[in-house]
Amino acid sequence: MLKQDVRDQLTAIVGEENLLDSQQDLIAYSYDSTPDFQELPDAVIKPRHTEDVSAIMKVLNEEKLPLVPRGNATNLCAGTTPLEGGVVMIFNHMNKLLEIDEENLTATVQPGLITQDLITEVETRGLFYAPDPSSMKISTIGGNINEGSGGLRGLKYGVTRDYVMGLEFVMPNGDIVRTGGKLAKDVAGYDLTRLMIGSEGTLGVLTEATMKLIPKPETKKTMLALYHNLESAGDTVSTIIANKIIPATLEFLDQPTIRVVEDFAQIGLPTDVGAILLIEQDGPPEVVDRDMVKMKEICEQTGAMSADIAATPEEGAALTAARRSALSALARMKPTTILEDATVPRSKVAEMVRAIEEIAEKNNVEICTFGHAGDGNLHPTCMTDARDREEMKRVEQAFEDIFAKAIELGGTITGEHGVGAMKSPYLSWKVGDTGVNVMREIKKAFDPNNIMNPGKMFAKDEKFRVVVEK
Amino acid sequence: MLKQDVRDQLTAIVGEENLLDSQQDLIAYSYDSTPDFQELPDAVIKPRHTEDVSAIMKVLNEEKLPLVPRGNATNLCAGTTPLEGGVVMIFNHMNKLLEIDEENLTATVQPGLITQDLITEVETRGLFYAPDPSSMKISTIGGNINEGSGGLRGLKYGVTRDYVMGLEFVMPNGDIVRTGGKLAKDVAGYDLTRLMIGSEGTLGVLTEATMKLIPKPETKKTMLALYHNLESAGDTVSTIIANKIIPATLEFLDQPTIRVVEDFAQIGLPTDVGAILLIEQDGPPEVVDRDMVKMKEICEQTGAMSADIAATPEEGAALTAARRSALSALARMKPTTILEDATVPRSKVAEMVRAIEEIAEKNNVEICTFGHAGDGNLHPTCMTDARDREEMKRVEQAFEDIFAKAIELGGTITGEHGVGAMKSPYLSWKVGDTGVNVMREIKKAFDPNNIMNPGKMFAKDEKFRVVVEK
Repeated sequence: MLKQDVRDQLTAIVGEENLLDSQQDLIAYSYDSTPDFQELPDAVIKPRHTEDVSAIMKVLNEEKLPLVPRGNATNLCAGTTPLEGGVVMIFNHMNKLLEIDEENLTATVQPGLITQDLITEVETRGLFYAPDPSSMKISTIGGNINEGSGGLRGLKYGVTRDYVMGLEFVMPNGDIVRTGGKLAKDVAGYDLTRLMIGSEGTLGVLTEATMKLIPKPETKKTMLALYHNLESAGDTVSTIIANKIIPATLEFLDQPTIRVVEDFAQIGLPTDVGAILLIEQDGPPEVVDRDMVKMKEICEQTGAMSADIAATPEEGAALTAARRSALSALARMKPTTILEDATVPRSKVAEMVRAIEEIAEKNNVEICTFGHAGDGNLHPTCMTDARDREEMKRVEQAFEDIFAKAIELGGTITGEHGVGAMKSPYLSWKVGDTGVNVMREIKKAFDPNNIMNPGKMFAKDEKFRVVVEK
Repeated sequence: MLKQDVRDQLTAIVGEENLLDSQQDLIAYSYDSTPDFQELPDAVIKPRHTEDVSAIMKVLNEEKLPLVPRGNATNLCAGTTPLEGGVVMIFNHMNKLLEIDEENLTATVQPGLITQDLITEVETRGLFYAPDPSSMKISTIGGNINEGSGGLRGLKYGVTRDYVMGLEFVMPNGDIVRTGGKLAKDVAGYDLTRLMIGSEGTLGVLTEATMKLIPKPETKKTMLALYHNLESAGDTVSTIIANKIIPATLEFLDQPTIRVVEDFAQIGLPTDVGAILLIEQDGPPEVVDRDMVKMKEICEQTGAMSADIAATPEEGAALTAARRSALSALARMKPTTILEDATVPRSKVAEMVRAIEEIAEKNNVEICTFGHAGDGNLHPTCMTDARDREEMKRVEQAFEDIFAKAIELGGTITGEHGVGAMKSPYLSWKVGDTGVNVMREIKKAFDPNNIMNPGKMFAKDEKFRVVVEK
C-alpha cells in the first residue's frame, strides 16, 4: 500500500479517478500472461499525457518506488508483473493514433494503441504496418516496442525494431527525451531509439512513438505444405532461401501442434502428417504468382507429401488464422502452458526441433513446437500444471536444456518475447558476463535508483527460469 | 610521443613492425577527410586479431591514453582525427571477408574490409549488400558501422544500421563482448548491437561484424528528370511516394551542382536546368518496368521538362557514377570543401533547399546542394578556403543557420555522416540537453576513463562547427 502522502501526491497529478488501489484492482494487475509469476502492486495509475508521466516519475524517483509500465501484458516473459510492488502504469488514456503522415509514411502513436488498430487503420489508406505479433489483436504498440516484438512477417519485413523512427520517453527522474523523428536517416548521437526498444520498461517510460509505414503489398497468396518428417520441411526452408525467394511468412508446425490446432480451429488440417509449413508471399501479383509456383516446386522436390496453394484469399486467411491460434489451442490442453522462443540460425531449425523432441522425452514432459521457420524463431510449448511442483522441476530442466542447445547452435534464449523475470537467469548464456555487466551499467546510467521495472532482465540469484518455489 | 615503457608494452603485443611512430606516419594519421581538423597522434598501431585489440586496450586504459579507431577516414565530421593525441588504431591486418553464409544470408567480416569489396563479392553469389555510402570504394565496413553510414539506396533498403546482425567488440577495459548473431530475431537484453552502430568509436573497438544480405535485385533501370525549378522536383518526390512507389534511389542535384558535376564527368548533363532528379528502380523486371512507366508519368505531370529512362544499363550506370562523383567534382573548385548532411522529413526537402539558398546568399558564401531527396538527406556543400578566416566565419554562420532550419523543420543535424568533433556543439539542438546527458552517462558506463575517441560527439565548450581559431 502506498504511504498516504505519496498517494496524495499522485492523485494530485492524475486525479483520484486515475489511481486504482482497491484489492480487486491490485489483483487484476498482479500478473501478466506468464504462468507462475504474481505479486501485488501498491497502486495502478493512469496518466493522461506525457506531463503526467513526468510528474509521476519525479514522485516515484524521490520515494524510490518501483514503476512497472504495462501495455496489455501479453508478454510471455513475466516482463510486466510487479515483482517488487510499487506502481503499475497503464495507458488507457494514452491510446490514440495521433497522426498518419502519408507523405512521410509515418504513423505517430501513443503507447496504449492496440497493434491491430494501427494495422487496420493504415491499411485503409493503402499503407502497411508490417510487425504482426501473434497477440496483435490485444497487444499495444508501447508493449511491442518495450519487448521488441516480432511476428510472422519478420523474415521478409523485419520486426518492431525496424519500424520505430522516433520516440518520446520519460526518464526515471522525470526528464522528457525525444529521439529520431520522421527521418529515414539520423545519426545524431547514440541510438537511444533502439536502446529503448526491447528495454522492457527498465530504462524509462515510452510516451509517444513515430512508426514507419510502407506501401501495402498489392496481393497475397498462401500455401500449405505437408511433410512426413521435419527434416524435409527444413530442406524446403533452406532451398527456398537458396533460390533467393524471401516469403512473407514461412511458418512451421510439428505434429502435436497440428493435432491440437485442428481440434481447436476445425479447418481440415491433416493430423497424421509429421510437419506442416505454412507459406505466404505478398507483393505485386506477377511476382507473387511466380514465387508461389517456384516454391510449390521446391516443396515437392524437397519431399513434401503435398503443397497446395489456397484457392481463395478466405481459404488462405483461415490457414493463417489457424496458425495464429496455436497458443490459444495449446492453452486449452492443460492448466498451465509455457511457451518459449528459443531462436537459432535458419539453417539449424530442423536440428533444433529434433533436439527439442529429445529433450522433452528425456525430461518426460510434453512439448509441442511451432514457430517462424524462416527466421529460426521457434516456440517450444510445454503443457503442464504449475501445481505439480515435481513436474515443474522437470519442465524447468527441459527449458534449460533447450536454451543450452539454442546457444550451442549459435542461437539465442529469446527471439521476440523478451527476457523479463523469466529468462533473466539465462541472459549471460547469450551475452556473456561482460555483456551483462555492460547492460547493468547502462541500466544504472538511466536509472540509478533502480525504480524502473526492477527484477526484470537482470538475474538476482540462481538460475530458475520457472519459479519452482516461492 | 609514447613513454618508452608504454611503447614497449605495445610492441610486445603487436611486434615492432605494427607500431608506427615516425614523424611521417604521425602526420599521415593526424587528419581525416574533414577540412580544418588536425592533431598528431602519439603512435599508430595495427592489431592482427581481436586478442591484440584486447591487450592493447588494457594497456591504454591503465595509462589513460586515448585510442582512436580508424577505418579509411572518409568520414566528414572529424570523427577520426586524434584531437587529444594518443594511439590511432588501423585495421590493415583485420580486413578479411571471413565468411559468406548463403543459407542464413549473412556475411561475417573484419572491420577493415572495404565496403565495395563486400558488395562485389556477394553480388557474384546473387546476393546483395544494400548500404552504399558514396565513399564505398575506399570506406571500410568498420568505419560504416561506427558512423552509421547511409547511402543512395537508403530510401528503399535502409542504411548500415539495418544490416548489422551481430558484432564483436572490445571494451575500453579489454573485455570482449559478442552481440547478436546469424539471427533474424534476438531480444536478449539491451540492443548493444545498435548502440555500437553510430557510436563513432567512443564506446569500444569493433573487431568483427555479421552483416545481413538479401537476394540481389534481378534488374535495375535509371531515369533522369529535368526541372525548371526545385519545387517541381519536390512535387515529383512527394507524388511518387503518394503513389506507393518506393524507388531504389531518388537523388537530387541543384543547378550549381549540376554544372560542376558535368564539368567533371562530361556525360552530357544539361547545365541550364534548375534541378535534376536521378531515379532508379530495381527488382523483378515486371515491377521495375511498371514503376518506371508510372514514375515517368508522374515526373511529367508534376512539371518535369523531360524524364528519360536510360536506354542501356551502361547509360544508367554512367548517370549514377556522375551523381556519386559530386563531392569529388565540387572539391576541385576551391581549396576547401565542406560538405554537410542536414536532414529533414521528405516532405520538407524543397523548403529546405530554398532555405539553404537564402542562407548562402545572406552569408555571402557559395553553397551547392545535392543529396538523397527520397529520404530528406541533403548535402549542402560549401566551396571555400580555410586560409581565409574571415570567410570561414561566414561559412560557420551559414552552417549554423542550416542546422537551425533543419531542426525547425523536424530534421536533424546529421543524417549519415556522424557528429564527430565537427557537429558536437550542435548535438543538443537535436536531442536536447536531457538527451545529451543520457548519452554522456552511457559513455561513462562504457568508458569511465574517457579514452575512446575523446573529443568526439560531446561538445567541450563553445558552439563552433568549423574550428575558426585553434
